[in-house]
Amino acid sequence: MSLLTVGSVAFDAIETPFGKTDKIIGGAGTYIALSAAFYESNQKIVSVVGDDFPKEMLDKLASVGVDLEGLQIKQGEKTFFWSGRYHNDMNSRDTLVTELNVLENFDPIIPESYQGVDYLILGNLSPQVQRSVIERLEKRPKLIAMDTMNFWMDIALDELKKTIKLVDVLIINDEEARQLSGEYSLMKASKVIRAMGPKYLIIKKGEHGALLFNEDKVFFAPALPLEDVFDPTGAGDTFAGGFIGYIASTDDISFDNMKRAIINGSAMASFCVEKFGTEKLLTITKQDIENRIEQFVALANFDMVQTTVG
Amino acid sequence: MSLLTVGSVAFDAIETPFGKTDKIIGGAGTYIALSAAFYESNQKIVSVVGDDFPKEMLDKLASVGVDLEGLQIKQGEKTFFWSGRYHNDMNSRDTLVTELNVLENFDPIIPESYQGVDYLILGNLSPQVQRSVIERLEKRPKLIAMDTMNFWMDIALDELKKTIKLVDVLIINDEEARQLSGEYSLMKASKVIRAMGPKYLIIKKGEHGALLFNEDKVFFAPALPLEDVFDPTGAGDTFAGGFIGYIASTDDISFDNMKRAIINGSAMASFCVEKFGTEKLLTITKQDIENRIEQFVALANFDMVQTTVG
Repeated sequence: MSLLTVGSVAFDAIETPFGKTDKIIGGAGTYIALSAAFYESNQKIVSVVGDDFPKEMLDKLASVGVDLEGLQIKQGEKTFFWSGRYHNDMNSRDTLVTELNVLENFDPIIPESYQGVDYLILGNLSPQVQRSVIERLEKRPKLIAMDTMNFWMDIALDELKKTIKLVDVLIINDEEARQLSGEYSLMKASKVIRAMGPKYLIIKKGEHGALLFNEDKVFFAPALPLEDVFDPTGAGDTFAGGFIGYIASTDDISFDNMKRAIINGSAMASFCVEKFGTEKLLTITKQDIENRIEQFVALANFDMVQTTVG
Repeated sequence: MSLLTVGSVAFDAIETPFGKTDKIIGGAGTYIALSAAFYESNQKIVSVVGDDFPKEMLDKLASVGVDLEGLQIKQGEKTFFWSGRYHNDMNSRDTLVTELNVLENFDPIIPESYQGVDYLILGNLSPQVQRSVIERLEKRPKLIAMDTMNFWMDIALDELKKTIKLVDVLIINDEEARQLSGEYSLMKASKVIRAMGPKYLIIKKGEHGALLFNEDKVFFAPALPLEDVFDPTGAGDTFAGGFIGYIASTDDISFDNMKRAIINGSAMASFCVEKFGTEKLLTITKQDIENRIEQFVALANFDMVQTTVG
């Protein structure tokens, strides 16, 4: 099935306790598309870069099946740039620099060839831009997933709520779920947030795994315990990309299949954090992913029926 | 199989954002034995109380199968008392009062009838006292599990390490695992700690679940997402009691059975936090536990094979 990703294609500069990068390639759209590409080869992207963005990465995206017709390249302008520094626990970070550049006046253009797309994921962007994409699609996709962040809750809550109302799956982290709902308990938060529109809510808890809520059902996917978390940048987007890529490739939005999609997303995220930026995602194979999925099965699987007695 | 619990039988006074108690019954030994009693009816306890401890609770313990011959009642002395106040997030607390009383000079006595016990759990106590119980048992139990806390790491690390060396299963929380090992990554911490002696390590992460490590195997059990956590006091001990009670009753120390034991411990802990102190544990039934286990299965279970499409 076809999958459309909307999200930033950008530059990042990252400092962690393990090291520091110069400008490297990042952006929610990049991570989502690269991650989803391991599952779905019929991809499209709506985004914008400046003329400073390296052609090699665009070629890479094209080579894994991402149609770039909706990726605007603005001559004489600069690509979005973010720089941040992670604290020692790797769970919190300070933003050092944010240069919106081409994102400042981003007006998403949907090429005619994108119309009729089956699945849509909206990476973290202004809620107005996210909503405009939904409105510009002539036929509603089978499933719309959306990421956002606390920044939009702080400065554009009403706009955000208007967009959230239109989507099927909202993907946010635990702090954001608490802020958006005003509830500390994630069980209570999930009810408040799903009353805003999305039938499905995924709450990411970083190293503590992820929760999926739908109606009266809850599923928990652990994160893989890792010896080292090298760089968490893009882990949430990579998770979302694995999730929606798996859904699009299997064309199955049952709750059981969403569980599998979340395990795949968690596996993809576990790779992402092992190197800086997109480095690891560019080197793994499908076999690596299958091996990691087996680790998740061993990690989380139990059988309550005792078959042998010591 | 028979199970011996060593641990405090005590009074607590608790303040949480939801309310405040007078002196109520608590203590690691109490929680462990009450929780284990849902699985194993052949229990023994080694502990000490003053003559101020209510006979009703001792009768309750006896009625669920706990042999009290090893519970010393010190005439003219007072029972151990702890008072604490939980912060708003319920994950941290301040100790307001600690009165050791009878615990100050606690010398555990092992009645002759306790010799040959099959399973042993050492609740949080001074590591010297914990070790003395192991040394006073003529035959080594099939499995020795042990809880401890950061307090002993701060003031008696060498003694603690001597005791840890003698046990099979160490049960601690994530902060304690980091302190004991000097490693932030729990994967690395688990290797350092298991090199100290215990073949099995359980790291409790509170609302984020629990990890079990053995050789190259890792198992993760989620915590049940709850609408309200009313009082976390005793949750860790209740977890440990469900774990060891399940192991003792099934007499099976395979890794697969330890997984089941941890799920049972997690289910018991999820009840404990729903009311103050031991209140909830005194009212639930085996059927309640079975229903909750089913919730854990639904929460954590996934099948990577897609059987139906869209």
